[in-house]
Amino acid sequence: MRKLEFYFDFLSPYSYLSWQWVKRKRVELFSKNIELECIPVALSSIIGHYKTKGPAQIESKRNYLFKDCLRFSKLNNISFRTPKFLPFNSLYALRSSLRENIQELQFDLIDLVFTKGWSEGKDIGDPDLLMEFFLEKGWDAQRILNNVNSREMRKILKDNIKKAIQKNIFGVPSFVVDKELFWGNDSIPHLEKFILGEDTLDMNKFDLFLREHPFIEL
Amino acid sequence: MRKLEFYFDFLSPYSYLSWQWVKRKRVELFSKNIELECIPVALSSIIGHYKTKGPAQIESKRNYLFKDCLRFSKLNNISFRTPKFLPFNSLYALRSSLRENIQELQFDLIDLVFTKGWSEGKDIGDPDLLMEFFLEKGWDAQRILNNVNSREMRKILKDNIKKAIQKNIFGVPSFVVDKELFWGNDSIPHLEKFILGEDTLDMNKFDLFLREHPFIEL
Repeated sequence: MRKLEFYFDFLSPYSYLSWQWVKRKRVELFSKNIELECIPVALSSIIGHYKTKGPAQIESKRNYLFKDCLRFSKLNNISFRTPKFLPFNSLYALRSSLRENIQELQFDLIDLVFTKGWSEGKDIGDPDLLMEFFLEKGWDAQRILNNVNSREMRKILKDNIKKAIQKNIFGVPSFVVDKELFWGNDSIPHLEKFILGEDTLDMNKFDLFLREHPFIEL
Repeated sequence: MRKLEFYFDFLSPYSYLSWQWVKRKRVELFSKNIELECIPVALSSIIGHYKTKGPAQIESKRNYLFKDCLRFSKLNNISFRTPKFLPFNSLYALRSSLRENIQELQFDLIDLVFTKGWSEGKDIGDPDLLMEFFLEKGWDAQRILNNVNSREMRKILKDNIKKAIQKNIFGVPSFVVDKELFWGNDSIPHLEKFILGEDTLDMNKFDLFLREHPFIEL
């Protein structure tokens, strides 16, 4: 069985947009013998690792990208609003959504949090509100949120981030399949081709590039 | 007459890829009463202004984006190689390509430099080689390259960069039409819709976003 890893942060609007693809394709992927693994990561830690700025830290870029999300969601009939506060602390939601925390409910919980935040405009950074959402679903909200503050879940989230960086991930959303990385909602058409064995990448050209242009730290 | 501004740097592979669109659409744009203005800018100055890192300064991102360019160029039948050295000093080429330097030859010169670098793999950072290319075309290479070192052309390039930043440009390639910014080769489908009056952006939603989420410097 092949595996498709989906790295995301609830803070990232493009993670929400990519999630719509994940949702739509989930059954089809399964029928192609591709197992989906959802891996929450904190974007701020990834950005910090590379000592750079996130897209939301530059005002003109933030505003432009928000327009881009509005355009994309309209074109693709995706409901799109911003969570009540931006930026917000996504750590509670991220640690809630760890497979190790909520097991077989992971897919449903991720979908719930994305929907509450980026479709309904709720404050998904607020742990009390998250608890309400989980209770409404009839889930064991108290246990989920106790776990969120546990040393174990903190460590698992940190390990996810380390794993992401080891896999050369520099932003979210990112997909990894057969060790190949695809970054961003825009990369999904390339990802789809890759899954079907129709990737247009000429690996010889890429290897030549790496040989001719070793990376130089400036 | 409407105007479409194209901001680019020869250093940027996505500027090269977008240039292929510019070339292909030039006549069509003109027939739609849209005048093209090509505005060279130094990406390093723009990145410096925002105190962030460029995509080529993070190894994993640089390598990923190169793969993305290979995939895109293959899918779109665009010849794609890297210039001999990466990164290189694009200032000679940029100042050569200023309209104030080469007037009505600007379009041809930009196309020549992009082709030599990103299709033929030549070192377009080398002023002697640029001179050779211009001489082969029968252009007044000596005059162009004398200009390149003039105080006047240096100032014009710097003014271009200031103008770009005033227009909220944070990267290249960027297009501006009717004061609306489109960033990146990926944004061209949105740009095309905008030009046709079919932009999918809901400006009310965007205004609401700005009111509800003023930018916070972190």
